[in-house]
Amino acid sequence: MHDEPIMDVAHLAHLEVLTPKPEESLRFFVDVLGMTESGRRGESVYLRAWDDYERYSLKLTGSNTSGLGHAAFRARSPQALQRRVDALQGSGFAVGWHEGELGHGPAFQFRDPDGHLIEVYYETEWYEAPPALRPSLKNQAQRFPARGVNVRRLDHLNLLTSDVTELRGFTEDVLGLRTTEKIVLDSGVEAGVWVTCNNKSYDLAFTLDHYGARGRFHHLTYAVDSREEILRAADVFLEAGVHIETGPHKHAIQQTFFLYVYEPGGNRVEVANAGARLMLAPDWPPVVWTESERRKGQAWGLKTIESFHTHGTPPIEQYDGPRTK
Amino acid sequence: MHDEPIMDVAHLAHLEVLTPKPEESLRFFVDVLGMTESGRRGESVYLRAWDDYERYSLKLTGSNTSGLGHAAFRARSPQALQRRVDALQGSGFAVGWHEGELGHGPAFQFRDPDGHLIEVYYETEWYEAPPALRPSLKNQAQRFPARGVNVRRLDHLNLLTSDVTELRGFTEDVLGLRTTEKIVLDSGVEAGVWVTCNNKSYDLAFTLDHYGARGRFHHLTYAVDSREEILRAADVFLEAGVHIETGPHKHAIQQTFFLYVYEPGGNRVEVANAGARLMLAPDWPPVVWTESERRKGQAWGLKTIESFHTHGTPPIEQYDGPRTK
Amino acid sequence: MHDEPIMDVAHLAHLEVLTPKPEESLRFFVDVLGMTESGRRGESVYLRAWDDYERYSLKLTGSNTSGLGHAAFRARSPQALQRRVDALQGSGFAVGWHEGELGHGPAFQFRDPDGHLIEVYYETEWYEAPPALRPSLKNQAQRFPARGVNVRRLDHLNLLTSDVTELRGFTEDVLGLRTTEKIVLDSGVEAGVWVTCNNKSYDLAFTLDHYGARGRFHHLTYAVDSREEILRAADVFLEAGVHIETGPHKHAIQQTFFLYVYEPGGNRVEVANAGARLMLAPDWPPVVWTESERRKGQAWGLKTIESFHTHGTPPIEQYDGPRTK
Amino acid sequence: MHDEPIMDVAHLAHLEVLTPKPEESLRFFVDVLGMTESGRRGESVYLRAWDDYERYSLKLTGSNTSGLGHAAFRARSPQALQRRVDALQGSGFAVGWHEGELGHGPAFQFRDPDGHLIEVYYETEWYEAPPALRPSLKNQAQRFPARGVNVRRLDHLNLLTSDVTELRGFTEDVLGLRTTEKIVLDSGVEAGVWVTCNNKSYDLAFTLDHYGARGRFHHLTYAVDSREEILRAADVFLEAGVHIETGPHKHAIQQTFFLYVYEPGGNRVEVANAGARLMLAPDWPPVVWTESERRKGQAWGLKTIESFHTHGTPPIEQYDGPRTK
Repeated sequence: MHDEPIMDVAHLAHLEVLTPKPEESLRFFVDVLGMTESGRRGESVYLRAWDDYERYSLKLTGSNTSGLGHAAFRARSPQALQRRVDALQGSGFAVGWHEGELGHGPAFQFRDPDGHLIEVYYETEWYEAPPALRPSLKNQAQRFPARGVNVRRLDHLNLLTSDVTELRGFTEDVLGLRTTEKIVLDSGVEAGVWVTCNNKSYDLAFTLDHYGARGRFHHLTYAVDSREEILRAADVFLEAGVHIETGPHKHAIQQTFFLYVYEPGGNRVEVANAGARLMLAPDWPPVVWTESERRKGQAWGLKTIESFHTHGTPPIEQYDGPRTK
Repeated sequence: MHDEPIMDVAHLAHLEVLTPKPEESLRFFVDVLGMTESGRRGESVYLRAWDDYERYSLKLTGSNTSGLGHAAFRARSPQALQRRVDALQGSGFAVGWHEGELGHGPAFQFRDPDGHLIEVYYETEWYEAPPALRPSLKNQAQRFPARGVNVRRLDHLNLLTSDVTELRGFTEDVLGLRTTEKIVLDSGVEAGVWVTCNNKSYDLAFTLDHYGARGRFHHLTYAVDSREEILRAADVFLEAGVHIETGPHKHAIQQTFFLYVYEPGGNRVEVANAGARLMLAPDWPPVVWTESERRKGQAWGLKTIESFHTHGTPPIEQYDGPRTK
Repeated sequence: MHDEPIMDVAHLAHLEVLTPKPEESLRFFVDVLGMTESGRRGESVYLRAWDDYERYSLKLTGSNTSGLGHAAFRARSPQALQRRVDALQGSGFAVGWHEGELGHGPAFQFRDPDGHLIEVYYETEWYEAPPALRPSLKNQAQRFPARGVNVRRLDHLNLLTSDVTELRGFTEDVLGLRTTEKIVLDSGVEAGVWVTCNNKSYDLAFTLDHYGARGRFHHLTYAVDSREEILRAADVFLEAGVHIETGPHKHAIQQTFFLYVYEPGGNRVEVANAGARLMLAPDWPPVVWTESERRKGQAWGLKTIESFHTHGTPPIEQYDGPRTK
Repeated sequence: MHDEPIMDVAHLAHLEVLTPKPEESLRFFVDVLGMTESGRRGESVYLRAWDDYERYSLKLTGSNTSGLGHAAFRARSPQALQRRVDALQGSGFAVGWHEGELGHGPAFQFRDPDGHLIEVYYETEWYEAPPALRPSLKNQAQRFPARGVNVRRLDHLNLLTSDVTELRGFTEDVLGLRTTEKIVLDSGVEAGVWVTCNNKSYDLAFTLDHYGARGRFHHLTYAVDSREEILRAADVFLEAGVHIETGPHKHAIQQTFFLYVYEPGGNRVEVANAGARLMLAPDWPPVVWTESERRKGQAWGLKTIESFHTHGTPPIEQYDGPRTK
């Protein structure tokens, strides 16, 4: 009989994104994506989508460059958090406890094998909408904004990495995420992996960094309700002068209906549909895509645009070596 | 520190539905809903939606009346199954192991306090599409049928019960499901409860039987991808001469976009959207709806139709007392 | 050989709507419907939807009551305008030329047999968007607002009348509109008529006034792109505290997907889909609906709400007899 | 005062399409597009979409090659037909009256300056659905099929031509269509023109033949109700093994949401949305697109695929010179 699956991580909770153009990035997330500011501290503005139940899902931090500050997952229980901390302590990846952050309790931080800073916590602050933002239906966190793209909730993030296999091993064994799909090149090298900790088909993905750099960021994704809203988002981006990189179209992998843009700070942002496809099977065997299958392009035949393989943040020109503690 | 949540049940797996008009019911599920036959045995035809990963999600059984034959949940692991069996054994609800069913391994059967027959199993047969039904994308179980309503997967079921509180206690404590929303009348009596075992906001709901009968069935629900597909489903039902009871409209509770029809055997069938709204919080506190809130009608003001409170299967005229082993 | 159809009226151009709550009505049209102010004069604010090509499609006028100020159609050419003026002059319905209105040239005004004030004009001012509202695509009048319901363009109006047959005769014979659908009661009395001057299936409808009053107004309709946007509009109205009278649902007549609300001034406003159904046949024979067919309710079975048959503006309590010059 | 616009042509009525693979092409139009066979004669099968009011909108004819057999427009009245015949007689383009075709009365045929065969007629046969295909709503021509792409009605056709300006002059002056948009190269050469005879923004388009050939065909287009249905069509084409050339995406020109595939006979078929955007202005000034504007790609940035500029039918390899009478 196999070991039971680890179920300790509940979901991706928030991301800290760095931007060299904090004011313009803020306007993008609020006016164009339709998010709501729910806190400020130092160089950071905290933002939320209308269906996020926690206080925020995005910490936007002014910086000298772009990229990922950190990613945070919420544990399923205090005991679950402790089990993950136990697994991380002594693994060589642990950074240590971080306390005093806005909106959540003590977080255990660590760097994944590629150097990205990640944290796990359990205690959190449920969002309480101020009167003007209170929803009509009590089972909803916040009023539907009816502004811009109206993103619903944080969906997933995608990391660039110098070693996909190593990062997959870490996320599976130490964090307890499950691999649902992956790309394996003819050489046997893994080029991309999608992992989940719940019924979404992925919360986290990571793909090979074209430049072999470490710790870079590919994109973050907010979900909307339907494919139609993603088409409308494309109209909204067009009108707002936002650079559309590619889409809307349907990925063959995970069948995500996608739309990628660059926010003013240079980070890639995806808007995707929220989850008609659920991963209900507790023992889903990973789907493996070959090099020749990938050459067919996306689901309906769109060839993948070159920049999708090369653009990451910080830009490779500003990359100054792997991140460390 | 609280106990950790029980995570042993993975998802609703299939339903056995009884029909006094087996041939017409079969035509409804295949031609109108767009399902696929994947097995036959005795008086039963086994049916599946295109995104169901198991061999089937519906066992349609010819009978002298309508109603629920049984409901089946899949456990998260062999160990999880054993834990639930241990909890059921000696609870007074256990029926015992059932083996030899098409498509899955040994199932432990029990009757809930209201008499509905339920089972849990782990071993299952993954669907292998015959050549003509093979999908173009390898991460999909079966070709999209492009026929009728094109239901995607089984979503949930709704039971009628003579005692909502008792049934809630059983599902929470013995099965380990979590209550996400409920209706509590001014008298303190619980009139409806929605429970989940995963990130869907409910897999199972149960509401008070208007006639105080036991073991009756309210409806089963198949999911489609978007609200637009539910509107189209209404067009399809209209053209097929299927009785539309109510909808499309949006429930206030759970915000489900719904459409209810009666299949030829008399059972109520819902088509609903598949899950933009996810229950990611591991500690979601149940939303409680009051009698006066319910009187406001559905989300956009539609008054709930009378038959929705009274029609169940088997019809009350054919009800012959509570079910037993 | 039959006479050739009259093709002199091109389309419904704008409506003047009266409101006893001008400031709240303005907020409704701008913030909730997503319209844009494009002029002010006296007690009136001029408003437009993003795809209206003329300067405005709504003149919102502060008044002591609610209802229709006037309706305006644009003629197809100067010659066409002259032909309609010739038909109206001496018909007993003519009011006379009206000049100096914002946004268009000389308009010939008349009262229909029920007393509603209507005008026809040809010369018009094409909307020139200010820089902040300029669209990205040059074949579009104005930037997509991404605010509220985002109504696209004025679609049609519906009048209450004391005599449907008389009004139909006038619109057909004098204005040259074509009847596409109508309701004829078992008594032979016409209860509702839908007429068009182009490929839309109607620009104007009129139904029997429940109280036998004259000159009252039933509703005005703005179009959006899809049924999905009407569902979203219902969410937006819900959040904004706007009274939803009925819908979203599909009318059997004309198959319009509808949603009716009351704006703060009391006038009924509909949001409907913009026109997948076109009336391309130049010789479409009117579809006649009987009383028993109407009793079946709307397309998917919704029973028509009582207020839909009785509520008009001005409210019957404020009605002070038929309008005259 | 300007001349009045000619309003004699009501709408595009049907197309005859040639195919070297008649059986496979038929299966494509019936099983994949969801059309209905409504007649057979000789090498031709007549097909219709569910909302076409005439007996058919497509005559599919077995042939030794692919391409357009002929295109047919319906006149607005007998008098309108006579006026167009008068304009064509003696123009050098007339072919003459053609009688005895299935489904419509006498048609006057002519070749446009590039050699495409076109006809205009007035008398037509309204479709009468057999019992099994009768719709539930009496204002609809045929039951919604709920099969494949479910195309609604014929929308437009696109011709390749050796001389865009010459063809525009002919369609404007002789047929009385109005130009709504066009592409003018930096050299002053017109590269594409979109013309309409009603409130659709185009019924007919024509673009420069890359090879300078004459009389070739670019594509035909069937309309569906919404953008969402076009996305679903892409899924349906993917499953059916149909070659998707490009899309779904939004054209900058006309803002059409498009999806192009090749039917088995090699002809390009488009599925597009049915008409939220209407051309209500009777005096719409043509929108002119420059070479540099076209280089920006489609509305959301997709670069136009090479084959879209080169592939036509018959294939250039089978082209044997201009067509004549």
